[in-house]
Amino acid sequence: MKDKLIILSGGMDSVTMLYDYKDEIGLAVSFDYGSNHNDREIHFAKLHCQRLGIRHEVVDLEFFKKHFRSSLLEGADAIPEGRYDEENMKSTVVPFRNGIMLSIAAGMANSAGLTQVMIANHGGDHAIYPDCREGFIRDINAAISSGTDGEVTVFAPYTGITKSDIARKGGALGIDYAETWSCYKGGEKHCGVCGTCQERKEAMAEAGLVDNTEYEQ
Amino acid sequence: MKDKLIILSGGMDSVTMLYDYKDEIGLAVSFDYGSNHNDREIHFAKLHCQRLGIRHEVVDLEFFKKHFRSSLLEGADAIPEGRYDEENMKSTVVPFRNGIMLSIAAGMANSAGLTQVMIANHGGDHAIYPDCREGFIRDINAAISSGTDGEVTVFAPYTGITKSDIARKGGALGIDYAETWSCYKGGEKHCGVCGTCQERKEAMAEAGLVDNTEYEQ
Repeated sequence: MKDKLIILSGGMDSVTMLYDYKDEIGLAVSFDYGSNHNDREIHFAKLHCQRLGIRHEVVDLEFFKKHFRSSLLEGADAIPEGRYDEENMKSTVVPFRNGIMLSIAAGMANSAGLTQVMIANHGGDHAIYPDCREGFIRDINAAISSGTDGEVTVFAPYTGITKSDIARKGGALGIDYAETWSCYKGGEKHCGVCGTCQERKEAMAEAGLVDNTEYEQ
Repeated sequence: MKDKLIILSGGMDSVTMLYDYKDEIGLAVSFDYGSNHNDREIHFAKLHCQRLGIRHEVVDLEFFKKHFRSSLLEGADAIPEGRYDEENMKSTVVPFRNGIMLSIAAGMANSAGLTQVMIANHGGDHAIYPDCREGFIRDINAAISSGTDGEVTVFAPYTGITKSDIARKGGALGIDYAETWSCYKGGEKHCGVCGTCQERKEAMAEAGLVDNTEYEQ
């Protein structure tokens, strides 16, 4: 039954989830919140939905640029280089971003007669982003359920696994991750040195995958 | 301490809350989600913030018109006339609207260094709108708290009282409710016959206030 709406960025995690649950997904939604890398991501989100025959919508969230503070919204030079760890990546937090995306997705799902919203948060994000953790997913699921009279719930099956685990799933599903986007700088190619690029490389290496991505460095 | 962000529609309830907590409010936010009556409401939201010297921002949420289904977004003719009760008003539900507004408000509060988001939901909305009930407020408070590492919480002090109770507070605060907007049709004057107009009239009558609003009927 196609009862699910997926939040699809076009990165490794959500593209894997798209293939993993393709027969249950009625609608894929990409949010354009004005980050440096949104255009790059959405290009790949579209491509995979076309390939799988899944309806895809892009929702413009212009208010983020104007009303939110985050290095992710301030241009490539603001993005920290180096490891994907708490101290280094803290400036990239967009406050309550996943809460906002899940809430809008819940309303859209309800409008479209769908009953679950999916998000591809995973264990590796927990230290940096509070709205990726298990407790948050439990609480926002309760809020979405009570706020829609039980008609919509949240399904986040990657919450407890790592990005390397996700890459292993993707390898088994035959995904070429060169057709996904991670780099927070959003240039022509992946920079290869920002925290998300490093995390991407490590996940593919740990999963034993060949990485066909073109990196600047 | 001015640590609160208020969601201010420009209707009776949120304008009352604005005056009730004016010394604690650092930012008032009006969401324009494309409903028939948003322009009318926001006019009064601005007026009261100017009068009180409270910073006011309008956030455009254009995606509602495109991706959501509700009679509130479909023009004046779609709005039901008659009493403010469940059967009649059901078509005006905008799915998870309060969840979406509270989530965006939470991110904005966090970006601005504020720690509480206020919303003026009340007891009279409970039957019709699931995202106005006490259980929803409890759950979304938990989600916003866990999703911001405890930096933002929800404060909804009118959840357990009625619109007539709110009107009594407003009378005591010296508010002239002719300087607020309720009518879902959003015409030149309040129509006087839609559910929200009837609810507005009743609340002022029960509170013993003189109603200076100009009604069509």
